[in-house]
Amino acid sequence: MTLTPGDPRLLTPGPLTTSAETKAAMLHDWGSRDDAFVQANAGLRRDLLEIAGASESHVCVPLQGSGTFAVEATLGTVIPPDGKALILINGAYGQRMARILDYAGRAHDTLETAEDTPPDIGALAERLAHDAAVSHVLVVHCETTSGVVNPVAEIAQTVKDAGRSLIIDAMSAFGALPLDAAAVPFDAVMASSNKCLEGVPGMGFALIRRAVLEACEGNAHALSLDLYDQWRAMEGNGQWRFTPPTHVLIAFAEAVRQFQAEGGQPARQARYAENCRVLIEGMAEMGFRPLLRPELQAPIIVTFRMPADPRFDFQVFYDRVKDRGYVLYPGKLTVAPSFRVGCIGHLGADDMRGALAAMKDVLAEMGVPSGAP
Amino acid sequence: MTLTPGDPRLLTPGPLTTSAETKAAMLHDWGSRDDAFVQANAGLRRDLLEIAGASESHVCVPLQGSGTFAVEATLGTVIPPDGKALILINGAYGQRMARILDYAGRAHDTLETAEDTPPDIGALAERLAHDAAVSHVLVVHCETTSGVVNPVAEIAQTVKDAGRSLIIDAMSAFGALPLDAAAVPFDAVMASSNKCLEGVPGMGFALIRRAVLEACEGNAHALSLDLYDQWRAMEGNGQWRFTPPTHVLIAFAEAVRQFQAEGGQPARQARYAENCRVLIEGMAEMGFRPLLRPELQAPIIVTFRMPADPRFDFQVFYDRVKDRGYVLYPGKLTVAPSFRVGCIGHLGADDMRGALAAMKDVLAEMGVPSGAP
Repeated sequence: MTLTPGDPRLLTPGPLTTSAETKAAMLHDWGSRDDAFVQANAGLRRDLLEIAGASESHVCVPLQGSGTFAVEATLGTVIPPDGKALILINGAYGQRMARILDYAGRAHDTLETAEDTPPDIGALAERLAHDAAVSHVLVVHCETTSGVVNPVAEIAQTVKDAGRSLIIDAMSAFGALPLDAAAVPFDAVMASSNKCLEGVPGMGFALIRRAVLEACEGNAHALSLDLYDQWRAMEGNGQWRFTPPTHVLIAFAEAVRQFQAEGGQPARQARYAENCRVLIEGMAEMGFRPLLRPELQAPIIVTFRMPADPRFDFQVFYDRVKDRGYVLYPGKLTVAPSFRVGCIGHLGADDMRGALAAMKDVLAEMGVPSGAP
Repeated sequence: MTLTPGDPRLLTPGPLTTSAETKAAMLHDWGSRDDAFVQANAGLRRDLLEIAGASESHVCVPLQGSGTFAVEATLGTVIPPDGKALILINGAYGQRMARILDYAGRAHDTLETAEDTPPDIGALAERLAHDAAVSHVLVVHCETTSGVVNPVAEIAQTVKDAGRSLIIDAMSAFGALPLDAAAVPFDAVMASSNKCLEGVPGMGFALIRRAVLEACEGNAHALSLDLYDQWRAMEGNGQWRFTPPTHVLIAFAEAVRQFQAEGGQPARQARYAENCRVLIEGMAEMGFRPLLRPELQAPIIVTFRMPADPRFDFQVFYDRVKDRGYVLYPGKLTVAPSFRVGCIGHLGADDMRGALAAMKDVLAEMGVPSGAP
């Protein structure tokens, strides 16, 4: 791990800690219509397709902005105005897709479960059997609200069997959790530069089945978010329609190069899984209890229940742990007070051990003998 | 000028050449919800308002993405669904605003002049007098299609006299051309990080009259582009709704610090004006002729007519000038073949002289005795 000396380690779901080499790639200016940049963009788009085994079936359309911009653009472009979406919701990012569809004026229905509970496959099959109007099913791969991993393979098969289209928000999972287009039939998957691929924030992308995207002209509800138009223009001259975040893109390409050098998705998953194991075990020793059962826990971000001890004050805990060089993350659960600790970014098990030692110190300082909820 | 050794100079309308210090500011990772970043964001928003003398009357709403995202977000947020826009068009960026309004479903009309001709103030007054439905007037401050500066002060007074609302796309002018909210009444002005303020690309912003924005709830046609929602959330906790481009924002704040140290807008304008003068004089010595009369030329980007000599091939010229370290820019005119050379970015008169020497060399190599059209 090559970290920037003096910088805190970000145990967050992103923006996260990136390698020194990734940031150093931003020390140059690039002309966005110049051939050197056009080639870098084309290479990155090819690499992202390969990560999902989607090079033959899908196209990669990058977009300026945060991951939510890529999600909104994909939903608005791929779901036609007369389509209807069924959103599988178990957290804030599922809720956000519903909000996006309200803006875009797309009909939608929801199938909601608690934040610690994956969607019910049987209920999904039943809903699809009884509502012929549903054209698209939307799911979040890893809901960072809780850190739960949703069973996208079973969902994809169920959606395919019912002859519907699947769109996966894989923002916080892409590159770390397996997702192969040949095994998991999806029409679109969205992610961003600054999650498990460890780039800096500022752009997202969608992998969209080519045959699907070809029929999406005129669907989008905003020019900036029209991925059909973005794709057609880029196919034409290799350039972005509107100014791309050049430095962010070059850093992303460098981060993907490091991803490949590390061994791709299996290696990335293994490192994060080890981070997650070390974290949960160390937290358990201090009495902290994670929200999720182990089989539901993605090695992305872990939600811990807030300690019951009245001497525990999260803001004080956060500030003092940060003073020791580790940035934690607030909770987002609606069901229970909580906080979160990320396992992703350019960090290894030793960084997790450092974070654990810092938290242990601070607990002692605060006079809190146990993190038990 | 502190340039990155070995990097070409970008004589483009952006992404452009930034200082080494601005890029070096990106060598750290920032937690987007952490207080240090929240403070940097707040300071940047204050600085941007001050540049336009708008601290009392307006608020600054930053947005992820390119300048077009900020333009689309502002139009969609500020113009209500039952409003009607009159767009003053003399180039591609005026046309783009019409396209945005088609997506957003806003009624609009246009008042169009040739690419080398500013809007007719009399015709604007007449149109406003005869079409009571027009609620908003839209204009581009500097149209980089040609490089023409549009008379925003006269336009603003005319719009104010008619009791309508003015929105200025100041993308390529903000920070270099004077624009003072007290002297030029506008309800919204949009710009981005990577033009005359010399940051890197990846975010834009709008300065919107507070009293106007307060009434804009529910207007926007896309969640990601809802500046009312973005503003309300940021007023609440100081944070961006969705992941901000942290490195881009920190670099932008550093670039604005350098802008202030240089002497603010007057100093920035003076440097660019000198760049522009050196460029046009040197090009004239080689026979090149600019499109615009001097009084219409903004010191931002200059359009030159394509040389008539059949031995002149723009792609060859571009490539060989680039080999010598200077990146030119293709033309965008519809009325005549042309190419463009930017005067903006972290460059001074010596850089322009270097570019002129490179172009002179290449012309000689190509056996082209004159750049005359």
